[in-house]
Amino acid sequence: MRLAVQRVPHFVGALILAISAGCASSGDPLPSWNEGVAKTALIDFVAAVTDEGGEDYVEPSERVAVFDNDGTLWVEYPMYTQFLFAMDRVKALAPEHPEWKTKQPFQGVLEGDLEAVAASGMKGLMEVIIETHSGMTAEEFEAEVSNWLATERHSRFDRPYTELVYQPQLELLTYLRSNGFKTFIVSGGGLAFMRPMTERVYGIPPEQVVGSSIVTEFELKDGQPALVRTPKLAFVNDKAGKPVGIYDYIGRRPILAFGNSDSDMQMVEYTIAGEGRRVGLFVHHTDADREYAYDRESHVGTLDKALDQAQARGWIIVDMDRDWGTVFPAR
Amino acid sequence: MRLAVQRVPHFVGALILAISAGCASSGDPLPSWNEGVAKTALIDFVAAVTDEGGEDYVEPSERVAVFDNDGTLWVEYPMYTQFLFAMDRVKALAPEHPEWKTKQPFQGVLEGDLEAVAASGMKGLMEVIIETHSGMTAEEFEAEVSNWLATERHSRFDRPYTELVYQPQLELLTYLRSNGFKTFIVSGGGLAFMRPMTERVYGIPPEQVVGSSIVTEFELKDGQPALVRTPKLAFVNDKAGKPVGIYDYIGRRPILAFGNSDSDMQMVEYTIAGEGRRVGLFVHHTDADREYAYDRESHVGTLDKALDQAQARGWIIVDMDRDWGTVFPAR
Repeated sequence: MRLAVQRVPHFVGALILAISAGCASSGDPLPSWNEGVAKTALIDFVAAVTDEGGEDYVEPSERVAVFDNDGTLWVEYPMYTQFLFAMDRVKALAPEHPEWKTKQPFQGVLEGDLEAVAASGMKGLMEVIIETHSGMTAEEFEAEVSNWLATERHSRFDRPYTELVYQPQLELLTYLRSNGFKTFIVSGGGLAFMRPMTERVYGIPPEQVVGSSIVTEFELKDGQPALVRTPKLAFVNDKAGKPVGIYDYIGRRPILAFGNSDSDMQMVEYTIAGEGRRVGLFVHHTDADREYAYDRESHVGTLDKALDQAQARGWIIVDMDRDWGTVFPAR
Repeated sequence: MRLAVQRVPHFVGALILAISAGCASSGDPLPSWNEGVAKTALIDFVAAVTDEGGEDYVEPSERVAVFDNDGTLWVEYPMYTQFLFAMDRVKALAPEHPEWKTKQPFQGVLEGDLEAVAASGMKGLMEVIIETHSGMTAEEFEAEVSNWLATERHSRFDRPYTELVYQPQLELLTYLRSNGFKTFIVSGGGLAFMRPMTERVYGIPPEQVVGSSIVTEFELKDGQPALVRTPKLAFVNDKAGKPVGIYDYIGRRPILAFGNSDSDMQMVEYTIAGEGRRVGLFVHHTDADREYAYDRESHVGTLDKALDQAQARGWIIVDMDRDWGTVFPAR
């Protein structure tokens, strides 16, 4: 008996060693991705660009991967998170803005008349964003955003928005970084709205976030130097603005681009057009049970032309229902 | 004899080990910096913010250090390198621009009449920069810059501009990075002029370069997606623009800022005003023998108000002649 007892630990130890070795050499880096075209394409791509002897090898410094945010890394349905934040800000700031009571789309927001809000079009929506995102210092705005993200919850899933990120994408970001990639967000969303959470949630530091911005001014406030956010648009990092944002902020053409809507087409097109091996992907929201199903006719994240052109252009459509074994991280 | 011969290698080996251990634990990370206030301040600062138990500890993610480029990391005298490049571009492009023969400051550049160029003021200089930096794709411009930097040499030192970088600063950049800092350039110079060389020369990748920019547009050129540089100013990353550039591109307040002119005052002021331990430094060009001596009255890198205010504000003036044992890297 004593002999047997002494031997069990050795046997267990050897087994653990064998399992660990197996994980390190052949473990699945993307466990939430189902086997299929998309997963195979990603793993083959990473293997090819990191194979030092291979013809597709890419130096680590050039391994730039860009991801859209809304609908690609986190939920954007039924409404972009930043716009929900802006609507809450309208309500909070209303006492200081009596004129909003009779001015669309602010009136619509205050009265819960979302049709009136929608009727104001993109111009109206931008006005709501700009008015509610300016008139304070950079630090004050960051505190507002952090506080809102910490307390508000998604209407359907009853979880904070920062938990409604896609588990397969978290795995992909980690997988890319462990293979020498730098991962960037390239989103139409506001820089200052995203940055308070990207490092904690995605492991992407603020300086690797590219987004839309308003004009900020440096001034002395109560004798202290401060950055004050003004109600003036500086840059819209959307559609044809995305490759421009990539050039201005990153300064290198990516080799992997991941989006989910027609607004990401130019980013993917620009990425793919570079020399050497490249890959472009789109999330297709096909999963009404676990998340949402929307595409061509959707009011957010419209995916129409990109669906039509994907096959001819070699873009990969990631079908959420088919390709993702898990959607959200476990609670 | 045989015994002695056998013993020598052991003795030598032990000696090498002892020396290596000494280097690792107490070697000088800044050998080109002379002992003095500046060097002590830098080493004390890095020790304090990396001491996990200490009251000045800063998380690695917040260890952001920003450096001006012209006159702080490389030579800017007798003229900013980017403007020399622009003047060479005026000469190269002149056949396509017959109107330049009678239009200042282009005429002055073509005729070598630098007084006429200077008389056109900052507006004229900006016009020369913008006209010579636009009208081509991003890739074409990058190739022009790389080619120029590879072939042109500084009039006095007869070395490529990329070798006229300051050895003490190269050591400081390496020292900071080896202590978990991220190092950034925050320069009035153009993003697209700096990025082709910063990674190779300073170890600073393109996405960690903040600078001035012109408007770039995404378009199809011969059926290929291309970024085309237009003759329209987008952002001037100078003076009060520097803290704004830091906010837009980096998204975090630095804890160390290093400049050399009054144009860097706002960047240093903004850095120092944050909570916790911070440090701000200015290179003072005091070394006519090894480099140049200029400050209050200079046409480049004017250092005047910052010299007056340094002591009261706790900024450190780095006296090139006194504080730097070496100026340029060995040939």
